[in-house]
Amino acid sequence: MGIVVDIKQERGDAQKPSFDALQNLVEEDLQKVNQHILNNMQSQVALIPQLASHIIAAGGKRLRPMLTLSAAKLCDYTGGRHVGLSACVEFIHTATLLHDDVVDESELRRGQESANAVWGNQASVLVGDFLFSRAFQLMVADGSLKILKILSDASAVIAEGEVLQLMTANDPQATEEAYLEVIRSKTATLFAAASQVGAVVADRPQVEEEALESFGMNLGIAFQLIDDVLDYSAKQAQLGKTVGDDFREGKVTLPLILAWRRGTDEEREFWRRTIEDLDQTGDDLEKAIQLMTEHNALADTVERARHYAAIAKDALGIFPSGEVKSAMLEVVDFCVDRAY
Amino acid sequence: MGIVVDIKQERGDAQKPSFDALQNLVEEDLQKVNQHILNNMQSQVALIPQLASHIIAAGGKRLRPMLTLSAAKLCDYTGGRHVGLSACVEFIHTATLLHDDVVDESELRRGQESANAVWGNQASVLVGDFLFSRAFQLMVADGSLKILKILSDASAVIAEGEVLQLMTANDPQATEEAYLEVIRSKTATLFAAASQVGAVVADRPQVEEEALESFGMNLGIAFQLIDDVLDYSAKQAQLGKTVGDDFREGKVTLPLILAWRRGTDEEREFWRRTIEDLDQTGDDLEKAIQLMTEHNALADTVERARHYAAIAKDALGIFPSGEVKSAMLEVVDFCVDRAY
Repeated sequence: MGIVVDIKQERGDAQKPSFDALQNLVEEDLQKVNQHILNNMQSQVALIPQLASHIIAAGGKRLRPMLTLSAAKLCDYTGGRHVGLSACVEFIHTATLLHDDVVDESELRRGQESANAVWGNQASVLVGDFLFSRAFQLMVADGSLKILKILSDASAVIAEGEVLQLMTANDPQATEEAYLEVIRSKTATLFAAASQVGAVVADRPQVEEEALESFGMNLGIAFQLIDDVLDYSAKQAQLGKTVGDDFREGKVTLPLILAWRRGTDEEREFWRRTIEDLDQTGDDLEKAIQLMTEHNALADTVERARHYAAIAKDALGIFPSGEVKSAMLEVVDFCVDRAY
Repeated sequence: MGIVVDIKQERGDAQKPSFDALQNLVEEDLQKVNQHILNNMQSQVALIPQLASHIIAAGGKRLRPMLTLSAAKLCDYTGGRHVGLSACVEFIHTATLLHDDVVDESELRRGQESANAVWGNQASVLVGDFLFSRAFQLMVADGSLKILKILSDASAVIAEGEVLQLMTANDPQATEEAYLEVIRSKTATLFAAASQVGAVVADRPQVEEEALESFGMNLGIAFQLIDDVLDYSAKQAQLGKTVGDDFREGKVTLPLILAWRRGTDEEREFWRRTIEDLDQTGDDLEKAIQLMTEHNALADTVERARHYAAIAKDALGIFPSGEVKSAMLEVVDFCVDRAY
């Protein structure tokens, strides 16, 4: 009996979707992207590479560049432009992270002190501007007006999304649609653009570009939904990350929106005090998680994420089967499954 | 006798260089640029046009767009692309102003409340990002990779200059060269790019592009030097602007660098206290102006500006005489003469 259970468990582990297959497939290109990033964040102004390497080297999964690399691979691209363009995507992402941390007054990023905590808001704003400009310089060096359009459009939408988020902050009555609009703009648009660029460098037909754009967009939405769940989850604590950042900042995400809509008047008083007024005491985070759990708000946010994940996977339906496609599909499942 | 004096005075006034001739020459185009700016700062996110119009409509001289317009006119350009590109230049400028005000914690801009004072730093950072992205969208719509290169290079240099300024802040021992490097990057580079773009749209030979780039660069340096003088000048007060902003922020500009280098040990103690330690009392600004005056630091900064102004004017030497060239030369003199 014991042996049977063991085998099941092993099989269970082996079937758990992971990031590894995709990572292995693009590993070589990713090394080049990392080198490209390092080379291009140099400046005679010493603070720029110091601060930039703090946030860029700090790790992160390089998910967005990997989307460009894997999309290009899926499209049988054999050239080298995807490397520089992946670096562009990561620079745009990093610039928004730097500005986000200033806007959110975050002191931590991926468990480390945030750049603004170390060097101050001023440096973070300006180095963000530098990386953003550098991204455009790299795109210009690549020379495709079409890609410049995709990524400058994405950048404008991201900024709009950030402003929209600022305007709807601390409002637990925000609708699910308003919240989706925010995460579509501020997160999913860059996932979409990063994926689309892979098809564009490979000079693939419009229908494949659109498929990859849709893949990225829906993966991005699912990814952000799960991120928002993790912020209230014990899983997050296991990973050594802080729990409750969104709550403490009064950031309104889907778990909270659902808990509000499904809650009693008394519970809404609680949300008003803690989220609208940011008047929080020691036990409030625990109580928030308890309310979300009671109302299935966390589990149902994962269900919503599954919906977008399913769309992302179907979007790849037009591509022939193969190891790249399999790895990309697995990453979608991984992005959702990391909630558990 | 009285009559003779009157005539002299009139002639004196008439000869005082002004901005008017250039303004009149490009007035029609400038109206189009303003319309283009208004049309392109729209967004369904209401805060964006609100905040953007606060800073853009607040006036300012539109000096940078006028450089593009007049350079194009000097190059006999007859198309319409210079309008959109002038708007790009103004958007880049406005984005940097928004971020500057956050970095400097400024409460006033052109005598009005700054955007960050009204809407907060967060909104200013994010709307700056939006305008910057929008500038690139407009460039992409224009479709010239050459101009995209000029303006993305300029944007990266501007950001580097801002970071450099941050690193050398509050250091009265900064060298004149270090200071020049800062203003060349953060101010003059965009003047240079704006002017060069005028030649590029007109498809003029390299030598004319370079002449206009040099014109803009040197005009920009002279302009910033005079701005830095005005910050300590009674003239500024007459114009209804605040005096002593740089002093209060401990910003190290050429008047201060000269006063420090020409000062006694005791005076350097004063500068250390007020600029390095930002430990200032009510009379300190007056005392600072007095020291600068005693050491000719303000007058000699104007002299330095004249040097760059002379280079700017000579740069236009290769262009045939005409009303556009005359007006551009007059603007150089105006930029220096506004010190008095």
